[in-house]
Amino acid sequence: MSGFIALDWGTSSLRVARIAADGRVLAEHQSAHGILNVPAGGFPQVFADAVTPLAPQAGTLCLASGMVGSRQGWLEAPYCPCPAGFDALAARIAWITDAPGDLRVGIVPGLSTVVRGVPDVMRGEEVQVFGALQLLGLQDGTFVLPGTHSKWVTVQAGRITGFSSFMTGEVYAVLRRHSILGRTMPDEDPPADDEALLRGVLNAMQAASLLHSAFSARTLALFSQLAPEQGPSYLSGLVIGEELRAQRLENSGVQPVLVGGQALTRRYELALGAIGVRSRAVHEQATWRGLHGLAQALEH
Amino acid sequence: MSGFIALDWGTSSLRVARIAADGRVLAEHQSAHGILNVPAGGFPQVFADAVTPLAPQAGTLCLASGMVGSRQGWLEAPYCPCPAGFDALAARIAWITDAPGDLRVGIVPGLSTVVRGVPDVMRGEEVQVFGALQLLGLQDGTFVLPGTHSKWVTVQAGRITGFSSFMTGEVYAVLRRHSILGRTMPDEDPPADDEALLRGVLNAMQAASLLHSAFSARTLALFSQLAPEQGPSYLSGLVIGEELRAQRLENSGVQPVLVGGQALTRRYELALGAIGVRSRAVHEQATWRGLHGLAQALEH
Repeated sequence: MSGFIALDWGTSSLRVARIAADGRVLAEHQSAHGILNVPAGGFPQVFADAVTPLAPQAGTLCLASGMVGSRQGWLEAPYCPCPAGFDALAARIAWITDAPGDLRVGIVPGLSTVVRGVPDVMRGEEVQVFGALQLLGLQDGTFVLPGTHSKWVTVQAGRITGFSSFMTGEVYAVLRRHSILGRTMPDEDPPADDEALLRGVLNAMQAASLLHSAFSARTLALFSQLAPEQGPSYLSGLVIGEELRAQRLENSGVQPVLVGGQALTRRYELALGAIGVRSRAVHEQATWRGLHGLAQALEH
Repeated sequence: MSGFIALDWGTSSLRVARIAADGRVLAEHQSAHGILNVPAGGFPQVFADAVTPLAPQAGTLCLASGMVGSRQGWLEAPYCPCPAGFDALAARIAWITDAPGDLRVGIVPGLSTVVRGVPDVMRGEEVQVFGALQLLGLQDGTFVLPGTHSKWVTVQAGRITGFSSFMTGEVYAVLRRHSILGRTMPDEDPPADDEALLRGVLNAMQAASLLHSAFSARTLALFSQLAPEQGPSYLSGLVIGEELRAQRLENSGVQPVLVGGQALTRRYELALGAIGVRSRAVHEQATWRGLHGLAQALEH
């Protein structure tokens, strides 16, 4: 294959890269044109503005993953059901029929699964997982993508066999900003406090539910056992600890691979370490590597 | 004892009653002067305005329970540690030294407990529990006070031996109004939907954490398996189901006593029934009955 253009197009940001045939990132930039910041009917123009600096020739392959394939995005790319490998994902790419500049623009579908009758979905994380598999030379593993809606993903023989979502980041944000818990915290976020984080992790792990453990962010503050500037890290520890509690990882032998930005994966590494679970991390390059793999699959 | 005046003085409302020596409620009214609606230094005036219609003579006992005894209230009444019976509560009432109209005004302390090093607190619910004990002629039991911060209270031999708080009502409210889950629900609350409620209860009970089960409110809506007008009841079922999951009541033989308003205790009765747990309910009269018992204890 020749090179291609990769787009990581999420809810709040758009990252674009020119990727060489061998996977090297030749150029990269980003903007705040996440899908929530695209005006009605504005996707072709935002796309054109984003790729023009990379000077693509007509016919160049452009692959976009993330919420751009949702109902609120450019073109809805129906979810691909699990179990799903790279081939299934490549086969279900949704193609834009009238893309600007005669480019070949494909939208990667998200994945869906059903557990006990309840559906679960992801968009964009599937590409990161496949990228992480390639970066680490793995065919199996448990992958964790922390964030607004964290994903825990199981991979067997190179295929994603299942996953579950946790509203960890969003629940943190609404409790921090809209609940009574924020009242004993400073408005501005203070520097991260690892000790407070780990205290939150351990308190959540020993509780039966976050509905109960979250109240400790208030009572510890009431009894002056938690300083106001420790509040945000403590609460972050509570929600991460709750997410980990639900996994029952202790003595499982599972060594998760964390995929995401440095600041967030570091928190999870600390939290996992505190409960005796080893992990390793892969960062933003996972998306480009995953899209590169898909581009290769399309050319074969 | 002669009669007395009872005040149920919470965060958002103030209820006042004139209670006869035998416990009958002779007159009752309420206002929106919860402690958050009292101006700085305004407690004596708000109190005077509230009790004047009941024409109390000088020296009349007035007992107030609830957040009025918190640091943000009229006078901080330090928490009474568990285990605590009626006598301990009565002994720790905080007295207002310069009350309007020469009335004897006492503020009932809340209760505190410590579980695995983490404090928990309540203010006002302890009076409701003692009232429910008297109304039902019980000395032991598990009492549930659903609400913004639900309380699960254990009573043994007439004393509250321990309790835990669950941020059920508040987490419902922030997820409903400030998270992505509200986006697939109507702005106005539709009529309660028992079927959707129970579906939420059962989905939460079989999940390991609300952080995961809450996401189903979104995915079921995405896949048209939950109508927008079912969303609020389904989410209410999820948070109540999470609270119940954490109790591990199945096969415990526990038959909780629900204490609170009709609409909310009914939801919990439905939810408990769905998991095969019998319960009974006591309503608003529990507060007056509890304060009456305290007044009696003070006169002896």
